Amino acid sequence: MTTSTVIALDAMGGDRAPEIVVAGAALARERYPKVKYLFYGNEPQVRPLLDRYPTLLPISELRHAPESISADTRPSVALRQGRQSSMRLAINAVAQGDAACVISAGNTGALMAMAKFVLKTLPGIDRPAIVNLIPTKAGESVMLDLGVNVDCDAENLVQFALMGAIFCRVVLGISEPSIGLLNIGTEEVKGHDELRAAAAIMRERPIPGTFYGFVEGNDIALGTVDVIVTDGFSGNIALKTLEGTAQLITWFMRQTFESSPLARLGYFFARGAMRKLRLRTDPRRYNGAMLLGLQGVCVKSHGGADHEGFANAIGVAYDLVERRFNDRISEEIARQYGIVNGGSLSPATEQAALTNGTE
Amino acid sequence: MTTSTVIALDAMGGDRAPEIVVAGAALARERYPKVKYLFYGNEPQVRPLLDRYPTLLPISELRHAPESISADTRPSVALRQGRQSSMRLAINAVAQGDAACVISAGNTGALMAMAKFVLKTLPGIDRPAIVNLIPTKAGESVMLDLGVNVDCDAENLVQFALMGAIFCRVVLGISEPSIGLLNIGTEEVKGHDELRAAAAIMRERPIPGTFYGFVEGNDIALGTVDVIVTDGFSGNIALKTLEGTAQLITWFMRQTFESSPLARLGYFFARGAMRKLRLRTDPRRYNGAMLLGLQGVCVKSHGGADHEGFANAIGVAYDLVERRFNDRISEEIARQYGIVNGGSLSPATEQAALTNGTE
Repeated sequence: MTTSTVIALDAMGGDRAPEIVVAGAALARERYPKVKYLFYGNEPQVRPLLDRYPTLLPISELRHAPESISADTRPSVALRQGRQSSMRLAINAVAQGDAACVISAGNTGALMAMAKFVLKTLPGIDRPAIVNLIPTKAGESVMLDLGVNVDCDAENLVQFALMGAIFCRVVLGISEPSIGLLNIGTEEVKGHDELRAAAAIMRERPIPGTFYGFVEGNDIALGTVDVIVTDGFSGNIALKTLEGTAQLITWFMRQTFESSPLARLGYFFARGAMRKLRLRTDPRRYNGAMLLGLQGVCVKSHGGADHEGFANAIGVAYDLVERRFNDRISEEIARQYGIVNGGSLSPATEQAALTNGTE
Repeated sequence: MTTSTVIALDAMGGDRAPEIVVAGAALARERYPKVKYLFYGNEPQVRPLLDRYPTLLPISELRHAPESISADTRPSVALRQGRQSSMRLAINAVAQGDAACVISAGNTGALMAMAKFVLKTLPGIDRPAIVNLIPTKAGESVMLDLGVNVDCDAENLVQFALMGAIFCRVVLGISEPSIGLLNIGTEEVKGHDELRAAAAIMRERPIPGTFYGFVEGNDIALGTVDVIVTDGFSGNIALKTLEGTAQLITWFMRQTFESSPLARLGYFFARGAMRKLRLRTDPRRYNGAMLLGLQGVCVKSHGGADHEGFANAIGVAYDLVERRFNDRISEEIARQYGIVNGGSLSPATEQAALTNGTE
């Protein structure tokens, strides 16, 4: 079995862990038969769950982690006191070469701090960012940061743009992506100072793709640009507002179809097409966001994801590994920065791993 | 005609001004026959437009404004150099008692700065905020600030909560509204410092309604709370993301109904209900946001609104005036702060009118 991909799983991360993590892996097992799993978690809790899935057992290894990181643990505390946590040990597995990637549905800030400390950032990147694809009218766009870097300076935003553009090239195959900075108006006088400073840098410095300028919230769904760059606060607000609104409209629609006998008859005929629409807008399809900018593949699953969603996050991680995504992105970044022999600018201390503004 | 309500209109504000402003007033004329209009704008441009609507002419007065404020004018520049602009003269009309309220679809930052300078803020309120109703699964929620106060401290957010709760009482009739602070997680460790500080104050200080705690982007559409409080940057991003997503899903739906003969047949039967859904989610219905916290009624229309949307903004302003909204909110604020004889804390200088962080 030398061709298998080993994925390290933080079995204790997420609202309904460890159940969802194990059930998600069992579901993904059918889709990705070449994957093996390294579960890190509380053995007495996880073992009986694994025993429920006979097909999962032969491809899984459970390693006991005496601790777990809760949703309200500060990243600094997680980093200093969580060295025996399921999250940390799962990340360590990647650094030690035991696993090709790690997935956690746990505390995002803690995951980022630990991953940054253990795996290090790519040369030229100060802060990793959470990136994902967003469904749009034009197809799909890349958006980052979706939730870790609460306060960003102009240079951070420019680095996000660089990474996002390369992600767009590799994942969506768009060679010259257009890049927009999320703001509250397209005029130069609007928004925070750092947005204007980032825009000024991006007009000067060569970046992969084309700098479009400022975009607004409604441009996300329109697909005005291929890459939407923002700080982690606004990005998270926008992403969750988008998810919530999509659910609301779907609910309105269901109500509409139940509002009269004629409408119910209409639904009867249209139900096949409606099912396709539901699939298209199902947020579970988009579960699994990469922590971009690390020397290792680390995927964050939504804390509230169900096993379908978690299985999708496994698929995302698997694809990234299979397509050697991280090698390609570090090559591209090195080319952009003219770094030939690598040379890490990564933080060497736990303190440096905490500069994401989440503290 | 002593019972008529006079509304001052900035005829030059908005993407398609003055056409949309005049056409919007003509449309609103049928809905609100008691309203009279004071148009401020470039006479050679506006006069021929007014002449197109014979029913509008007898209830309209056009006052020439030699200048207009463009979308990219900085608020400070607008305030100091735009004293003869259509926007400023329309606001002056309210201060002078010529009009009961003012509506502009122009530059939001300039409108706020001028309105704050001319009309003054209510006693106890440092910064006005843009407020509006948002459609939710539970009905409607009040959300503020939607786009002027880019940087807010904890005290600003608490004042927004106070004003939002009172707005909710008066407009939605909810006597004990629940209030949520928009954040990127519900845990205490998440988000900006000022959010945590604002939450701490709201747990201590008596506010009208109940402080729920932090809410996330998806809670907006869910209607988790009656009042959503946020800074103007996040609020604007969330609002526009919501609008864009609603449009996207509606578009997906239309595509779905055209995807097969059966789906088209389904649409045929459901079309009456679908029309209701479209009306329910039509963003024009929600056009017209109040600048809350001023000693006068000032309504902001979306810059890109069409004449339907602008007519709706006129309806919003008319309702606020008819229901003596501003008297009621200042009474409530005075009661909250224990202010008996009024006593303005409003800025006396142009400099003080510019502390909205939009510069």
